[in-house]
Amino acid sequence: MLIVMEKNTSKDTIQAAVTAIEKRGYTARPIPGGDRVSIGILHNKGSVDAAHFLGLEGVKEVISVTKPYKLVSREFKQENTRIKVGDAVFGDGSFPVIAGPCAVESETQVLSIAKSVKDAGAKLFRGGAFKPRTSPYSFQGLGKQGLKLLATVREETGLPVVTEVMDVENFSLVEDYADVVQIGTRNMQNFSLLRRAGKSSRPVVLKRGLSATLQEWLMAAEYIMEEGNNNIILCERGVRTFVRHSRNTLDLSVVPAAKKETHLPIIVDPSHAAGVRNQVIPLACASAALGADGIMIEVHNHPEEALSDGAQSLYPDQFIAVMKKINAIHAIVRE
Amino acid sequence: MLIVMEKNTSKDTIQAAVTAIEKRGYTARPIPGGDRVSIGILHNKGSVDAAHFLGLEGVKEVISVTKPYKLVSREFKQENTRIKVGDAVFGDGSFPVIAGPCAVESETQVLSIAKSVKDAGAKLFRGGAFKPRTSPYSFQGLGKQGLKLLATVREETGLPVVTEVMDVENFSLVEDYADVVQIGTRNMQNFSLLRRAGKSSRPVVLKRGLSATLQEWLMAAEYIMEEGNNNIILCERGVRTFVRHSRNTLDLSVVPAAKKETHLPIIVDPSHAAGVRNQVIPLACASAALGADGIMIEVHNHPEEALSDGAQSLYPDQFIAVMKKINAIHAIVRE
Amino acid sequence: MLIVMEKNTSKDTIQAAVTAIEKRGYTARPIPGGDRVSIGILHNKGSVDAAHFLGLEGVKEVISVTKPYKLVSREFKQENTRIKVGDAVFGDGSFPVIAGPCAVESETQVLSIAKSVKDAGAKLFRGGAFKPRTSPYSFQGLGKQGLKLLATVREETGLPVVTEVMDVENFSLVEDYADVVQIGTRNMQNFSLLRRAGKSSRPVVLKRGLSATLQEWLMAAEYIMEEGNNNIILCERGVRTFVRHSRNTLDLSVVPAAKKETHLPIIVDPSHAAGVRNQVIPLACASAALGADGIMIEVHNHPEEALSDGAQSLYPDQFIAVMKKINAIHAIVRE
Amino acid sequence: MLIVMEKNTSKDTIQAAVTAIEKRGYTARPIPGGDRVSIGILHNKGSVDAAHFLGLEGVKEVISVTKPYKLVSREFKQENTRIKVGDAVFGDGSFPVIAGPCAVESETQVLSIAKSVKDAGAKLFRGGAFKPRTSPYSFQGLGKQGLKLLATVREETGLPVVTEVMDVENFSLVEDYADVVQIGTRNMQNFSLLRRAGKSSRPVVLKRGLSATLQEWLMAAEYIMEEGNNNIILCERGVRTFVRHSRNTLDLSVVPAAKKETHLPIIVDPSHAAGVRNQVIPLACASAALGADGIMIEVHNHPEEALSDGAQSLYPDQFIAVMKKINAIHAIVRE
Repeated sequence: MLIVMEKNTSKDTIQAAVTAIEKRGYTARPIPGGDRVSIGILHNKGSVDAAHFLGLEGVKEVISVTKPYKLVSREFKQENTRIKVGDAVFGDGSFPVIAGPCAVESETQVLSIAKSVKDAGAKLFRGGAFKPRTSPYSFQGLGKQGLKLLATVREETGLPVVTEVMDVENFSLVEDYADVVQIGTRNMQNFSLLRRAGKSSRPVVLKRGLSATLQEWLMAAEYIMEEGNNNIILCERGVRTFVRHSRNTLDLSVVPAAKKETHLPIIVDPSHAAGVRNQVIPLACASAALGADGIMIEVHNHPEEALSDGAQSLYPDQFIAVMKKINAIHAIVRE
Repeated sequence: MLIVMEKNTSKDTIQAAVTAIEKRGYTARPIPGGDRVSIGILHNKGSVDAAHFLGLEGVKEVISVTKPYKLVSREFKQENTRIKVGDAVFGDGSFPVIAGPCAVESETQVLSIAKSVKDAGAKLFRGGAFKPRTSPYSFQGLGKQGLKLLATVREETGLPVVTEVMDVENFSLVEDYADVVQIGTRNMQNFSLLRRAGKSSRPVVLKRGLSATLQEWLMAAEYIMEEGNNNIILCERGVRTFVRHSRNTLDLSVVPAAKKETHLPIIVDPSHAAGVRNQVIPLACASAALGADGIMIEVHNHPEEALSDGAQSLYPDQFIAVMKKINAIHAIVRE
Repeated sequence: MLIVMEKNTSKDTIQAAVTAIEKRGYTARPIPGGDRVSIGILHNKGSVDAAHFLGLEGVKEVISVTKPYKLVSREFKQENTRIKVGDAVFGDGSFPVIAGPCAVESETQVLSIAKSVKDAGAKLFRGGAFKPRTSPYSFQGLGKQGLKLLATVREETGLPVVTEVMDVENFSLVEDYADVVQIGTRNMQNFSLLRRAGKSSRPVVLKRGLSATLQEWLMAAEYIMEEGNNNIILCERGVRTFVRHSRNTLDLSVVPAAKKETHLPIIVDPSHAAGVRNQVIPLACASAALGADGIMIEVHNHPEEALSDGAQSLYPDQFIAVMKKINAIHAIVRE
Repeated sequence: MLIVMEKNTSKDTIQAAVTAIEKRGYTARPIPGGDRVSIGILHNKGSVDAAHFLGLEGVKEVISVTKPYKLVSREFKQENTRIKVGDAVFGDGSFPVIAGPCAVESETQVLSIAKSVKDAGAKLFRGGAFKPRTSPYSFQGLGKQGLKLLATVREETGLPVVTEVMDVENFSLVEDYADVVQIGTRNMQNFSLLRRAGKSSRPVVLKRGLSATLQEWLMAAEYIMEEGNNNIILCERGVRTFVRHSRNTLDLSVVPAAKKETHLPIIVDPSHAAGVRNQVIPLACASAALGADGIMIEVHNHPEEALSDGAQSLYPDQFIAVMKKINAIHAIVRE
C-alpha cells in the first residue's frame, strides 16, 4: 500500500502519519518522490484497510498509481476555473441555471419557453438542433434551421444559447450560432470530436458518458484542454446501473469527488438522469444543496406534445417554483 | 400481466397459450395489435409469476403490470405512515436526524458522541453492537456489552437508540435494549429475519440491499408488514455500481420514486454510501433538499481511531455545521 | 405499447389519456383489468416513444411491446445473414477466427504475428492503425502508415484485414486499405459514423458499447442498415459492471439473446473483456461452445513489449493451443 | 505502484522484472517482504499502466494491498481441494453435474425427474424444500415434507441430494436430510448462517451474492472455513448488472479468476443466471468449456406447470442432449 501525502505537507504531519500507521502494527517507510512524499507500508500481514488512513491529516489518497490527468487536475492549477457566459459565471460559487426544451421545435415554442425561463431567473437557454437519437426513425432535430431559431432566441431575450454538436462536420456551423457547445454523453469518448472542441473558442459543456468513471471523464476533458481550450464545464447527467425506477442513476457524489480532483466547474442535469418530471424537481433542489456550479434543466411549454423527452420536461409554472427553492437553498450552502 | 406473442404466431399456438394460462386459474384475453397478438391476463388476485409463461411456445415476452406489493403500497393506504420515536416523527414532513458512531466502542466514546449530537439537534442515537463485517477477522462489535452501553446513552441523554440486529437468535436481546431495530443491507432478503421483525413491537429501519430494486425492497418491507409490524422506515444507503470514486452510489432518485409507490417513510444514510467524509457533508445537504423523511449520519469523536468506518465519520464540529445547513434547507423545501 | 393507469382513475382521466394518444395519430383501446385499466396503443407503425405518455395524468407506467428495430430484426428477415470475407463466412454455422495484435507497431511485428496466426488457422488478421485511447498522452496508433502495413500483411499472407475507423474524416482512407472496418465500443452511438458506415461497401464489425443494452446495439446496427449496408457483424466485448477481477464482464448470454432477435452474425472478443491473458483462453473456449459466429482474439509475438494491451495478448504458442481446442469444441456444438 | 511477485520467485526472475520496469523509464526498488518480494516503482511521472507489468514472468499482481483472505487462499494451500459426494468429486478435474427442479413439489415429480437426470449422467440431485422468494405470497416450498421427498429420491436412485438452507433455525433439520447444503445468493453475507455452516459436517455449496465481488465471496467462504468446515463448493449464478435480456449476467470470467486465488472448487449455475431456457443450453456448454468444476442445472418434467422458475428449467430431453455436449466438451478441455 502506498499512502500519498498532500503536496507541501510539513515534516511534522508526515511524522504523525508514520506514527499513526505504526501504531496499527505496520512498518511505514516515507518515500520522497518528485514533488511530494508517499509512505509505503511494509511487512503487513494480510491486508490493510485503506479507510484507516484515508482520513489522516495530510493524506491525499491511499492508492497504487498517481492520476493520469495533468492539465485538468487541481494539482496543476489550484484555483477554480471561472467561465463567464453572458451574465453567468460557472465556477465562482454562484449557481447559474441553464433551461430550455430538449429539442428546438418552432419559433413560437422556443420564444415562449425562453421568455418564461428568463423571467424565472435562468441565465442561459438550451435547446437541441441536432439530436442524437437511439433510433434512426426518431425526430433528429431541425438542424441548421434549429440553430437559426436559437439565434432568434438570443436576439429577442439576450440569453446566451447552449446546443449540442454531434460531429466534426457540423462543428463550425454550430459554433457560429451557439454561445456554448455541448458534447453529449454518447460522444464523451469521441476523441476526434474532443480534439475539434479543443480548437474552438466557445466554452464546452462536456457531459459524462453513460458509464464513464470520473477518471475517464477527466481524461476526455484533458483531450480538449490539450488542444488549447480551457473553458470546459463538466455536466453530470446520470449513469447506467441496474436501477429501473429512473432512466439513469444521478451520481451526485461525483460532484464533490470531481471538485477534489479538478479545477473545472461541474454542473448537474437532473432531467436526463430522472426521465420523469416528478423526480426532476427534488433532484434539482438536491443539486443546489450539493454545492454544484449550476444546473441544466428541461422546460417545455407543452410537455405532453414535445417531440422528444416530454415526460421529463417541467411545466413553466413548475420551473418558477423550483427556481425559488434552488435560489434559497444555494444561498444557504454558499455562505 | 401481458403476454406478447411472436409475429405470425398461428391461431393454434395462441389458443394453446390461452389454455395454459387458464389452466392456472386466470382469465386470458387475446388482444390483436398492429402486427402481433398479445394476451392479457385478467382478474388475477395479486401478482402473477412471469416465469410460468415465458417458456410457452410462441411467447416472445411477458410483461408485468400489477405491482406485487400490497400492504406497503400507496394504493392500499394513501396517507403517509407516521412513526413516532421519542421526540421524533418519521413521515410527518419533519426531518429527524439519527447520529452516532458506526460501532459502539466504549462508554466514554458513546456518551461523548451522544451528548454532542444531541446538542446539535439529533433526535436519535445510532451505534452498532453487532457488526456485520466482510472479514471474520475484523472487529465484530461488543455484542451484549454494546447494547448495555446504548441503554446507558438513553438513560443519560434521553435519546432513543437505533442498533442493528443480525440474526433471529439475538433478536429478542436487541429488542430488549433498542428503541428501533435496524436490518442491514446484507440482510434485506434474509426472509427469516424479516418475519421475526414483523413480530416485533419495535419500529424497524430497513436498509436497502446493495443491489436491490425498489420493488424488491418494498417486497422485503411487505414480509415485515405481513407479520403485523407496520412501523417500517426505509433507508437508502447507496447501491453497487461500476463507480469507484465513492464506496457506493447514493441513489437519491429512489426517494421520490418510493414515495410514489409506498406510504412508508424513507430516510437516507449518506455515510455508508460515500465512504469518505468530504462527500458526506454535501450528500447530507442534498438529502435534506430532496424531501426525504430524515437522515442517518455517522459521527465519531476520534474518527482517526475508530474501530470501523472512521474515514466516513464526521467530526463533532462538522456535524454541528451540517445540522445548521440541513435545518435551513429543510425549512425551505418543506413549506 | 401498453399504458398502465393508476388504480381508481376516473373515467374522465382515462378519456383524457385516450384523447391525448389519439391526438398523436394512434388508436387507443382501454383494457379493463383486475383492479386497474390499461390502454393499448394499436396500429402504430414502428415504435412509439414512451416519453410522450409517461407524464399524462393518471398514467402509472408505459410499457413498450413492439421492438423499435426493423431491418435488423429476425422477424423482418428469418434466415441468418451470411457475410463472406476471404475464406471466412460469418453466419453460416462456421467459427472463423480473427487474430492479431491490439495495435500495428512495425512491419516485422505484424508479419511475424500474421504468419503465425494464419498457420494456426486464423481466417482474418486484426490490428489497430487508429487507436482510441483514454489518454491523449498514450500511443495513438501509426495512422496511415499502419494501414499500409496492414496492406502488406494482406499481400504477404492472403489474410483479409480488419481495422478500426474512429471518425468520418478518415473513413475513406481506412476503407481503402481494410477488408472489414471496425466501429469500436466508444463509437457505438456515434450516429454520424454509423451513417457513414452505412454507405460503405465494406462489412462492418460493430462492437457493443460499454453499457449498451441489446436493443441499443441493434438500433445502432439499424442506423447502418438503413443507409444500405447489410453486412454487419456484431461483436460482444464485455460490458461495464461493478466487477473488478476482469476489465469488463463478458456477457455471453447476449449471444443467444441476439440470435433470437436478429439475423445478423455475432462474434465474441474475449481479449478486451478479460484484460488478462489467463482469462482469455477459457473465455475463448466458452465462446466456441456457446454457438457464437466467430471470435476475435489478440495475439502478440512479444506481449511484454506491446505498445498497448500487452497483458491480454496471447503468445503465439498459446494461440495455437487454444485454436485446437476451439475447433474441437465447435465441431461438437455445431452438429 | 507495487508489483507483487509470486512466492519463491528466483533472483533471476526478479532481476528480469526490474530490468523490464526500468526499460520503461521507471526506477524499480525490490522490497523483500515477509514471504515474498515486491517491487516498488519510484520516480514515475504520471501514472503507470498496470497492464504493462501484469504479464511479466513471476508477477502475481500489480496492486496496493495483499488479499484479506487466508484459509481459502491458494497461497495458504496450493493444491486443489477435492470434495467427494457419492460418486462425484468436485475439484479433481472432472465435471460433475447437479440436476433437478427448482422446487420439490411432489413425490411423482421428484422421482420422475431424478430418474431421468440420473440416466442422463447427473451425479447429484437438487431440489428446494425451503424456497427464498421475493414475495411473501409466492410458494415458499414444502419444508420438512420436501426434505423427506429428497430422502426418498436418494433411497430410490442412489443420488446424493443438494438443498438450500435459509436460516440457522432449520439448519440441523436440513443437515439431517441433505448430503450437501446450499447457501443461497441472498444469504451469502448472512454471517450467522455462514458460521453455522462452518460447524456442519456437510459440504456446502456457497452461491455468489447478487453483487458480490470475488473478494467478498471468498471472505464469505473464509467465515465457513474459519469455523472448521473445509468442504466448500463455490457456485457462480449470475450477477446483477444493467443488462435486461437475461435475468442476471453470468460472469464466467470469475471462474479462472477464482481458481487463481483459491484452492476451492467452483461450479456454475446457468439456469438462475439466464432465467430463460434457450440461454441455459449454450451457457451450460460454455461452462463446460471454461474449465469449471461442475455445473448445477434445473430440469423439470413439466416446466410449464412448475411452481417456481419453470421458464428456466430444461425439459428432460433437452437435458439429455446438453449432457452429451457437455461431456464431449469437457473431454476436450480437460486433457
